[in-house]
Amino acid sequence: MKFSSKTLENAVEALATLPSVGRKSALRLALHLIKDTTSKSTKLASALVDLENNINYCQICYNISDENTCEICKEPHRNKTLVCVVETVRDVMAIEETTQFNGMYHVLGGVISPMDGIGPSDLSIVNLEDRVKAGEVKELIMAISPTIEGDTTIYYLSKQLEKYDIEISTIARGVSFGGELEYADELTLGRSIISRIPYSSEHQ
Amino acid sequence: MKFSSKTLENAVEALATLPSVGRKSALRLALHLIKDTTSKSTKLASALVDLENNINYCQICYNISDENTCEICKEPHRNKTLVCVVETVRDVMAIEETTQFNGMYHVLGGVISPMDGIGPSDLSIVNLEDRVKAGEVKELIMAISPTIEGDTTIYYLSKQLEKYDIEISTIARGVSFGGELEYADELTLGRSIISRIPYSSEHQ
Repeated sequence: MKFSSKTLENAVEALATLPSVGRKSALRLALHLIKDTTSKSTKLASALVDLENNINYCQICYNISDENTCEICKEPHRNKTLVCVVETVRDVMAIEETTQFNGMYHVLGGVISPMDGIGPSDLSIVNLEDRVKAGEVKELIMAISPTIEGDTTIYYLSKQLEKYDIEISTIARGVSFGGELEYADELTLGRSIISRIPYSSEHQ
Repeated sequence: MKFSSKTLENAVEALATLPSVGRKSALRLALHLIKDTTSKSTKLASALVDLENNINYCQICYNISDENTCEICKEPHRNKTLVCVVETVRDVMAIEETTQFNGMYHVLGGVISPMDGIGPSDLSIVNLEDRVKAGEVKELIMAISPTIEGDTTIYYLSKQLEKYDIEISTIARGVSFGGELEYADELTLGRSIISRIPYSSEHQ
């Protein structure tokens, strides 16, 4: 790409460092921002500077937060004996959107993945153990992706925490609601037959 | 989407104002920037502020430029009698990449499109006429999209400029090189038969 302006070129290079934004998309974004008359560029720039400087992690659950304790951990009516263990902040948001869960969270920051060089010490596992040790927690729900790495992480956590008197559960896995059987993958369908549950109207 | 942090929410809102970036993609970008340890956010922010403050348009051809005259207009060896009229800065870049053109450019800033409220006065048409009036230009090449609006714009320009002693040409339209005839659209194929050219080895 040959640029007539160094300023434009710099903006395109910077935008193209974002994931899944190539140089052609970056150029399109930059030209859109140049055409814009509502100083969208400056607003975006100041939001990005804030992002770099003001983002904190909750000291309890490791969720992204503006302060030392996040909004969820601050809510007084939540069930503090129930902790849902998730990989990322996005999982917290996804579960919150279901409005089906009223407990606390613990964000691991990823899963154990030797291939990517991520070991237990790179995740907030010690902090989870500290929370369990403190005594208030009665159940951990493992809401972690059903992958080899996810299963390894759940196994590791269950071994680390077996000396404490808590229950460890995992979220149910099976065929999606509204999904058609023929389109479910073999593993999911096979497992959903093995882990079949007694029929009762409550589960429908 | 329920956010645990106002800073994150602001960044997502700002990123989601970009074209073809929805709120889910914006969240993914923001979380990527938070994880990044090379202060990518700040670099991007400063490039965007520059974009807002330092972008200029070339006073000759209306290409994007850092100064009052763009790099292309400054190049001394270019053929100043030949001007290629294009819609946008991206067209200039596309033509420059072919390395087949050694003349000057004129960026209209769009095409006449009454449906979108764009009339001749919204484009740099008066300035093009001024360039032609100055006398140096001998030929205008219309490199404008083959759409109804594009054709209207070419017709309008040809009428506006017919009183001057210049040649007006348009880029060749037809079946793409390497394209298979059966996949060409009817209009293109039909036109390419009507505007057939005598066979000579030069055109191959």
